[in-house]
Amino acid sequence: MTIWKLAARAEKMNPSVLREILKVTERPGIISLAGGLPSPRTFPVEAFAEACAEVLRDDGPAALQYAASEGYGPLRQAVADMLPWTVDPAQVLITTGSQQGLDLVAKVLLDPGSRVLVETPTYLGALQAFSPMEPTPVAVASDGEGVVVEDLVAQARATAAPDSAETAPLPDAAPRPGSASAAQRAREAARFIYLVPNFQNPTGRTMSEARRAAVSAAAAAAGLPIVEDNPYGELWFDQAPPLPLTARNPEGCIYLGSFSKVLAPGLRLGFLVAPKAIYPKLLQAKQAVDLHTPIFTQRMVMAVLKDDFLARHVPSIRALYKRQRDAMVTALRREMAGLDVRFEVPAGGMFLWLRLPEGIDTVALLPEAVERGVAFVPGAPFYAGEGDARTLRLSFVTASVAQIDSAIAALADTLRGRLARHAAARVERELAGT
Amino acid sequence: MTIWKLAARAEKMNPSVLREILKVTERPGIISLAGGLPSPRTFPVEAFAEACAEVLRDDGPAALQYAASEGYGPLRQAVADMLPWTVDPAQVLITTGSQQGLDLVAKVLLDPGSRVLVETPTYLGALQAFSPMEPTPVAVASDGEGVVVEDLVAQARATAAPDSAETAPLPDAAPRPGSASAAQRAREAARFIYLVPNFQNPTGRTMSEARRAAVSAAAAAAGLPIVEDNPYGELWFDQAPPLPLTARNPEGCIYLGSFSKVLAPGLRLGFLVAPKAIYPKLLQAKQAVDLHTPIFTQRMVMAVLKDDFLARHVPSIRALYKRQRDAMVTALRREMAGLDVRFEVPAGGMFLWLRLPEGIDTVALLPEAVERGVAFVPGAPFYAGEGDARTLRLSFVTASVAQIDSAIAALADTLRGRLARHAAARVERELAGT
Repeated sequence: MTIWKLAARAEKMNPSVLREILKVTERPGIISLAGGLPSPRTFPVEAFAEACAEVLRDDGPAALQYAASEGYGPLRQAVADMLPWTVDPAQVLITTGSQQGLDLVAKVLLDPGSRVLVETPTYLGALQAFSPMEPTPVAVASDGEGVVVEDLVAQARATAAPDSAETAPLPDAAPRPGSASAAQRAREAARFIYLVPNFQNPTGRTMSEARRAAVSAAAAAAGLPIVEDNPYGELWFDQAPPLPLTARNPEGCIYLGSFSKVLAPGLRLGFLVAPKAIYPKLLQAKQAVDLHTPIFTQRMVMAVLKDDFLARHVPSIRALYKRQRDAMVTALRREMAGLDVRFEVPAGGMFLWLRLPEGIDTVALLPEAVERGVAFVPGAPFYAGEGDARTLRLSFVTASVAQIDSAIAALADTLRGRLARHAAARVERELAGT
Repeated sequence: MTIWKLAARAEKMNPSVLREILKVTERPGIISLAGGLPSPRTFPVEAFAEACAEVLRDDGPAALQYAASEGYGPLRQAVADMLPWTVDPAQVLITTGSQQGLDLVAKVLLDPGSRVLVETPTYLGALQAFSPMEPTPVAVASDGEGVVVEDLVAQARATAAPDSAETAPLPDAAPRPGSASAAQRAREAARFIYLVPNFQNPTGRTMSEARRAAVSAAAAAAGLPIVEDNPYGELWFDQAPPLPLTARNPEGCIYLGSFSKVLAPGLRLGFLVAPKAIYPKLLQAKQAVDLHTPIFTQRMVMAVLKDDFLARHVPSIRALYKRQRDAMVTALRREMAGLDVRFEVPAGGMFLWLRLPEGIDTVALLPEAVERGVAFVPGAPFYAGEGDARTLRLSFVTASVAQIDSAIAALADTLRGRLARHAAARVERELAGT
């Protein structure tokens, strides 16, 4: 018997479906297209080594002392300067990875039962970050250009209470001010919509300029806040993506950014930009969770950023990832020919999203692919609602071009094998029927 | 009009009382005994510089890549090896400062209304970390040796429901499995007791061996989990404190530790040790909040720790802090002579706790002290229940010995001034009464 009584939110926490699924991929010799790991070839190891030495030499004690919860002043200024709209550094909060930004947003904006709108499919880590606050994620219909505006508007609205007894005011043992049941919250207007407009994880899709304009206008008209997550925006291949949604209406958006994809993820350094109306609440939540993000890594990155380092460094990441995307697209077109496998060519980022022929369940296919030496992520767990079992996510940035070639060939073999067995089973059923 | 609807927990977040109070201390020339900052003289800047260079040279890409949510394997092993009871490294979770451990514990163990027992007074940052989960902190009576066992036992119990209509089963619009109102939770057994047994913040007191044995036995008998926070335990002056409570009953305790006071706080590196019964839930919560603690700083610290660095380094911190404690005690005895100021001499740590004469409110005294060039932290905000307005906290580790001397003299002046005005007012009232 345990003495530990869990909080209700913890009772509902389950081991990540994805983690469980991916356990089969943990064996030597597998080429993994499953991970979301940036290529370590892009990490500026030398620049970091110089930065560490410089920071400790010039201001060691300050770089190792407790620091402000808001973040390192010069880094907040640098973030404000980097962004393509007018940002007051006082609105910038440095976070321990942009994942922490999602945790803070959830703490400050979500009650149990609150509806939060997400894309179809959406970033799984966001669903996980929101989950402890027990909201109700609602999938908004999405197409190749992003969320569908009509469905966004419909889902944003408060829903009319059904005409039944349960709408009567409820007695409560000890009503707390502002308290409401989860059921009541589920009828309120959605608290915000969470969007990854650039090279989205998992689909790789980018929201078009026209769609951004329409989404921004519709959200503003509906009074629907936007939480815009942009970890991949700098990783464009041919042209920069359209302006962020936040640039169009800064008072109505929280913007999350990260140094993980342009410098290195192992420092866990991200930021958010929030309107003055809610910045103080996010700051208080931040202070309570870890006092502040490590000041040493903030100063390290600030030392790396000077002399316009990113302007020289990021183009080399873009070029590498573009070559790898091209290799994957070429391999897919060659190996999957005639197999009714659908995909869009991503214009940047790290991921490519496949839809396999009818009747294929990628969760069931994964162990067979692993047998042939390749791993991917099944797509269904990325959906807030019912998942599309035919989808899967491939990363084109971690493996080498040669590995991509053989991995896609192995994946096509796997699929052919499965399809042949489906066909054989169909023939058998037909014979049995005669 | 704002479109941002806050979560109920965020509506209740208020700017830290302490932050507001301490704003008066933010002026140049003040000697601050208010902060909780370790002396930067103790930061091993050289060792860190070597460690950074080594980590980046030997394994740069891995030190900059995404890493495991549990923490860096060798560091988890080192933590397990450091602790004075048998710890399986699989039970160690590396956290972004031990403050994050408090956030994770609250997420996993506290529901709205859950009672959580704390010392009188207690660490303010813990109250802040727990607060977003909306528990009800309950102050357990405490004396110079720690919490009073009888009160602990009384407060740990589930309280009988009062014989009134509100105990009847309540209708609910949409009962969720496991749901209960905050009022119901307030009658349940307390979820855990939070204790800082060594050189506590803010009082500096240490729980005696006899008290530890009694608290451990009473908590185990009552089925009350213990969350033991030990950031200061290594900072002992004459002898090591008694064994942690967790060592006496590892299955009934979560232990939080930190590298902030033995190496440097600016890396935000802490850890927790949890029983296997709840480790997976804490890990899931950790993964959702920041994926993992920066791997670069984990590897840096691991590189510093080798060759038994702490065994050479920590004694120099102890010696420095002991000299500074002695200086403060000497100055207090000299300057406060005859003023009815009470304090215990702390046997380690960073803080000394004063109780001023009757009638003095340290919140009101602070601006007068700042006028005379010295800052402290008023004690009342550290209490979960009603605060003792006569108390204040002094840090003896940030200021130099010379600064401590003049700061204590200035504080004594301030107090004498205030007492003289009290006396004058009393005389005036008496004259008016005649």
